[in-house]
Amino acid sequence: MIKVGIVGGTGYTGVELLRILALHLEVEVSVVTSRADTGKSVDDVYPNLRGLYKLAFTAPTIESLLGCDLVFFATPNGIAMTMTEALLDKGIKVIDLSADFRLQDIAIWEQWYGMTHACPDLVSTAIYGLVEMNRQAIRNASLIACAGCYPTAVQLGLVPLIEAGLMDTSAIIADVKSGLSGAGRKAALPTLMSETGESFKAYAVDGHRHLPEIEQGLATVNQGEALSLTFVPQLVPMIRGIHATLYTQTNAKLTDIQTLYEEHYVNDVFVNVLEQQTAPDTRNVRGSNHCQIGLFKPQGKDTLVILSVIDNLVKGAAGQAVQAMNICYGFEETLGLKTVALYP
Amino acid sequence: MIKVGIVGGTGYTGVELLRILALHLEVEVSVVTSRADTGKSVDDVYPNLRGLYKLAFTAPTIESLLGCDLVFFATPNGIAMTMTEALLDKGIKVIDLSADFRLQDIAIWEQWYGMTHACPDLVSTAIYGLVEMNRQAIRNASLIACAGCYPTAVQLGLVPLIEAGLMDTSAIIADVKSGLSGAGRKAALPTLMSETGESFKAYAVDGHRHLPEIEQGLATVNQGEALSLTFVPQLVPMIRGIHATLYTQTNAKLTDIQTLYEEHYVNDVFVNVLEQQTAPDTRNVRGSNHCQIGLFKPQGKDTLVILSVIDNLVKGAAGQAVQAMNICYGFEETLGLKTVALYP
Amino acid sequence: MIKVGIVGGTGYTGVELLRILALHLEVEVSVVTSRADTGKSVDDVYPNLRGLYKLAFTAPTIESLLGCDLVFFATPNGIAMTMTEALLDKGIKVIDLSADFRLQDIAIWEQWYGMTHACPDLVSTAIYGLVEMNRQAIRNASLIACAGCYPTAVQLGLVPLIEAGLMDTSAIIADVKSGLSGAGRKAALPTLMSETGESFKAYAVDGHRHLPEIEQGLATVNQGEALSLTFVPQLVPMIRGIHATLYTQTNAKLTDIQTLYEEHYVNDVFVNVLEQQTAPDTRNVRGSNHCQIGLFKPQGKDTLVILSVIDNLVKGAAGQAVQAMNICYGFEETLGLKTVALYP
Amino acid sequence: MIKVGIVGGTGYTGVELLRILALHLEVEVSVVTSRADTGKSVDDVYPNLRGLYKLAFTAPTIESLLGCDLVFFATPNGIAMTMTEALLDKGIKVIDLSADFRLQDIAIWEQWYGMTHACPDLVSTAIYGLVEMNRQAIRNASLIACAGCYPTAVQLGLVPLIEAGLMDTSAIIADVKSGLSGAGRKAALPTLMSETGESFKAYAVDGHRHLPEIEQGLATVNQGEALSLTFVPQLVPMIRGIHATLYTQTNAKLTDIQTLYEEHYVNDVFVNVLEQQTAPDTRNVRGSNHCQIGLFKPQGKDTLVILSVIDNLVKGAAGQAVQAMNICYGFEETLGLKTVALYP
Repeated sequence: MIKVGIVGGTGYTGVELLRILALHLEVEVSVVTSRADTGKSVDDVYPNLRGLYKLAFTAPTIESLLGCDLVFFATPNGIAMTMTEALLDKGIKVIDLSADFRLQDIAIWEQWYGMTHACPDLVSTAIYGLVEMNRQAIRNASLIACAGCYPTAVQLGLVPLIEAGLMDTSAIIADVKSGLSGAGRKAALPTLMSETGESFKAYAVDGHRHLPEIEQGLATVNQGEALSLTFVPQLVPMIRGIHATLYTQTNAKLTDIQTLYEEHYVNDVFVNVLEQQTAPDTRNVRGSNHCQIGLFKPQGKDTLVILSVIDNLVKGAAGQAVQAMNICYGFEETLGLKTVALYP
Repeated sequence: MIKVGIVGGTGYTGVELLRILALHLEVEVSVVTSRADTGKSVDDVYPNLRGLYKLAFTAPTIESLLGCDLVFFATPNGIAMTMTEALLDKGIKVIDLSADFRLQDIAIWEQWYGMTHACPDLVSTAIYGLVEMNRQAIRNASLIACAGCYPTAVQLGLVPLIEAGLMDTSAIIADVKSGLSGAGRKAALPTLMSETGESFKAYAVDGHRHLPEIEQGLATVNQGEALSLTFVPQLVPMIRGIHATLYTQTNAKLTDIQTLYEEHYVNDVFVNVLEQQTAPDTRNVRGSNHCQIGLFKPQGKDTLVILSVIDNLVKGAAGQAVQAMNICYGFEETLGLKTVALYP
Repeated sequence: MIKVGIVGGTGYTGVELLRILALHLEVEVSVVTSRADTGKSVDDVYPNLRGLYKLAFTAPTIESLLGCDLVFFATPNGIAMTMTEALLDKGIKVIDLSADFRLQDIAIWEQWYGMTHACPDLVSTAIYGLVEMNRQAIRNASLIACAGCYPTAVQLGLVPLIEAGLMDTSAIIADVKSGLSGAGRKAALPTLMSETGESFKAYAVDGHRHLPEIEQGLATVNQGEALSLTFVPQLVPMIRGIHATLYTQTNAKLTDIQTLYEEHYVNDVFVNVLEQQTAPDTRNVRGSNHCQIGLFKPQGKDTLVILSVIDNLVKGAAGQAVQAMNICYGFEETLGLKTVALYP
Repeated sequence: MIKVGIVGGTGYTGVELLRILALHLEVEVSVVTSRADTGKSVDDVYPNLRGLYKLAFTAPTIESLLGCDLVFFATPNGIAMTMTEALLDKGIKVIDLSADFRLQDIAIWEQWYGMTHACPDLVSTAIYGLVEMNRQAIRNASLIACAGCYPTAVQLGLVPLIEAGLMDTSAIIADVKSGLSGAGRKAALPTLMSETGESFKAYAVDGHRHLPEIEQGLATVNQGEALSLTFVPQLVPMIRGIHATLYTQTNAKLTDIQTLYEEHYVNDVFVNVLEQQTAPDTRNVRGSNHCQIGLFKPQGKDTLVILSVIDNLVKGAAGQAVQAMNICYGFEETLGLKTVALYP
């Protein structure tokens, strides 16, 4: 039984951590911080957690976290980088769900996130938290940088083929759709029901912060070589779910690609490669930590279509973080993560 | 570990049973029947269950169910009544999620359901499966008739006050709203997304089959006396959730009513009486077996407003059935039912 | 051809006025104000209006409005009352879509709206803008106070019966459901898609500002006598539409009530009394200025169920305002308001 | 004033024709057929049309249509081809909204639609009804084949660039998303709210009937040469709207492409080329006959991203048909089509 703290308990990834950890047999959540809700009890703020926590939100201070074995940051970008060093110094592990430690190139990070990085030296010690790309390194990590939601879906869809050197890496297309919870739990006009319901649109077409993260991750499996990828994020009028539709050119046969993916993920319980030519549906992973992948080569052309779906708040955030924690502490990888997707 | 069968595994209550029982520690699902999907593997039909079942759907025959300790019927009305006797004769318990054994008055049942009842004698032996109204009787039951989804929300909201004799029973209003999954998993025009999305409407205003069931249940706690209730069901453009808005006249004080409800449900872990004047939200019980209740007396008038919410497929169907099974077999009441509601 | 100004052009009722007036043959919109969007062109802010306006938003000043014949206020409460007198003094008519002039009792207004009224003397000169209750007075009005969205649906549903003296006025129930656009176009947490999608809840159960307006309006047709009404507003996960489910006790026959309603509204082109026992659906008035009403007496009890639906932004706001303007200027009542509801 | 008939008045494109034509000043709808609803009055079946039609549905016979100047077919595929010749012989014009006359290559049509064509000789006389591609030919047409909904959005997005010979035509990607109304008004499991709400998925990835139509149309502007296009249709949990996200390789500058598109569509009132790097939103064309297009070259790469949105039932079906009719009869092109998109 380890004691964990959650910094930033009033965002969607924070409450999702609370949901998952409520039933985790090896974890006791001993601190949850929130500037906005300091003093309020957790289950007053979140009636879905009623009866599961006897805990009130506290102000986010280093002192209050010192009794923890592990601290999750479910904060906006720019917070974790100011607190992580002090925690690591005390031997407390840190799993950051924000973007503070995702990009190894500090200049690129500062350009995309518009801030000066507070602890650039720590960045190179951070382990990227996407278990399926990095299981071994996560076992011994002290500081884990969870992947972004879009990068999770895109990378899980592309890694096997890139690693196998079977595709053209000069003009990859990632047409990706997300539910609205990805925009976070904050007052904002563009994410109102009245603004997003019954409509579909692209945004940040000229550049989204997750692009350099995807490029960095895919380069690592491309023998360090950069790739050229066009990433178009789009908003679906639903709450949870990411659907990545990936297009790449390859002359490999679909059956061989299918076999490649099945073998690549044979030991990854949370990645399901569906039968050849089967389209996944975001609802089938809603609330679960799974990624489901479907592969197609329409009309036998060289264009391969890879469909990859996740729940952005689970596999794309809190579930991924708990999965990394399980690996890191030697718990069973699926502990706390067996929730079945809600259908319908 | 008991062996259970599910008859009617391709409707929404059937797949919800499969979702809940997949992680139930004392249950092995050994048979799932489906006329439509005979021969197909469960997780091909339901990709959200991938990896959880190594089972194919079979045709619904008595023979195939004889190895079970317990059989759930998640069938359309009129099926369970033709198979139950044969199962009971073999010592197999039956929990029926359909309406076949809900109404004690056979004439009323036949009038509302438009069929001749196949086994009227069995009806009087059936135990109504709403645990909070009937926990004691369920312990020794062989045949359990689960409550309808609307009756579950309405009765949980009204029972304490009626039992206490504190309200006028001559003109109760039950204005109840349901998500679309209540209409079932079958091809139909009126429940298409294009017909129901972005719209709200009442239906069956002149009479819904759940009315006599509510009247029967409430009469039992009203010392056997009939009440007069107007029940208007309405469709909300969402998938899961029932919100009952109940209106009744009483001159009791709100604080006393609040205390009455809290005490009435003090041992019912799945019923949460919210703080006085707090409105429940269907999302806070989505995917969970809880009922949440809020109480109001607007402007200090004699009109009491009771808000009662459930997930129609869980507490209103499959979760209720599993809860009754747990009681019936002496398992912990919450076994398999600890899933936390998905928010957001 | 009259010149109109719109103060508050960046809220949902403002843009709805722009949508309706774009095709109105007797109106030229010459000024649209917006603090937030001053200087931006109307069709940049609202791409659905592209090509229909060559107009930019301006700051809201009296001076800029002096060239208008008529000014609509589509502002938050508390703005119109500070500008109306100056406009009326110049002979400019005012139609206020906010609540500033709706309540005749200033003390009640100040209590519910939490402000001191800026021009109490003007209030008694304001004409309530619900044409079906007030057509004659509107013809000569200079200052029109449009009805709130909930009061429009509730009053159109109840007025004929109350006026006829046929119902018990001691315990009326108005269970009313609204889409999210009623909450307005402003950054806010509770109306995000992630907070409201796939869920249903009541709010302001203890008291909503539209209650005194409904009570005032219904008293006027009840020979000046107060009634007792319980009003519970609820949020439906959709954008547009209000569905009022009204319950009252009466021993009049349903066929007589049906005839009463049909005759009452025989000359009101925007109110459709549906065939007896037909439930209206909010989608059938989406985008249109119609109210559709259905009448039921379930099980022949004394409880009458009246269902009344409108589009909250059209008949409940901007459409009603244009209808009042048409009456006031002697235009055909339906001018600019012939848009057919969008189905599906 | 011309007399028109609508064959197939109970599908979504049929009722959309009825909505549009209700206010068309030069058209009288004199016949509407429906097998399913024969004898019922139009506004009983469609309460949104209440008061606009004094017409009942009739059985679809040639005889009943002989008094018409023009007949629209809003039928499933395979119906129009059996009735068109008889109508043309009587001098009656035909506008077909189904796919019967869209493909010039009969063999390809028969392969994709799985039927033998009933009147192959007529196909070559049919004029493709997408006005922006074919305005001149439509003026004198007797038989018009309206474009499919997907082909409308995709072709309007690609035609200017292909015609200018500025793009690589060897690997075009059309990632296209549609609301559910595109699936039609018929009882079906996959399009239920419970099956499609809160979820996103691709379908027909291996081949959709609209692919050969797109290929045929684009080849005509590519100097008759075939192109290679991968088309992936996807379902968005909303009712109306198509969003095509188109990817192609070009080394032309974005500003030049922007100018090209603006000039290409300068006389097409229903196509709006948005400011450079502006993403369109399907809601801004909901209920209107417009197509809105946005152009991007992310990160200055050679990948051009073209976003093209329409309302599938208006510009993608009934609106397009009425626009073609207007051209064909010399009416003003926008007659009956001035409806402004509903926002929010």
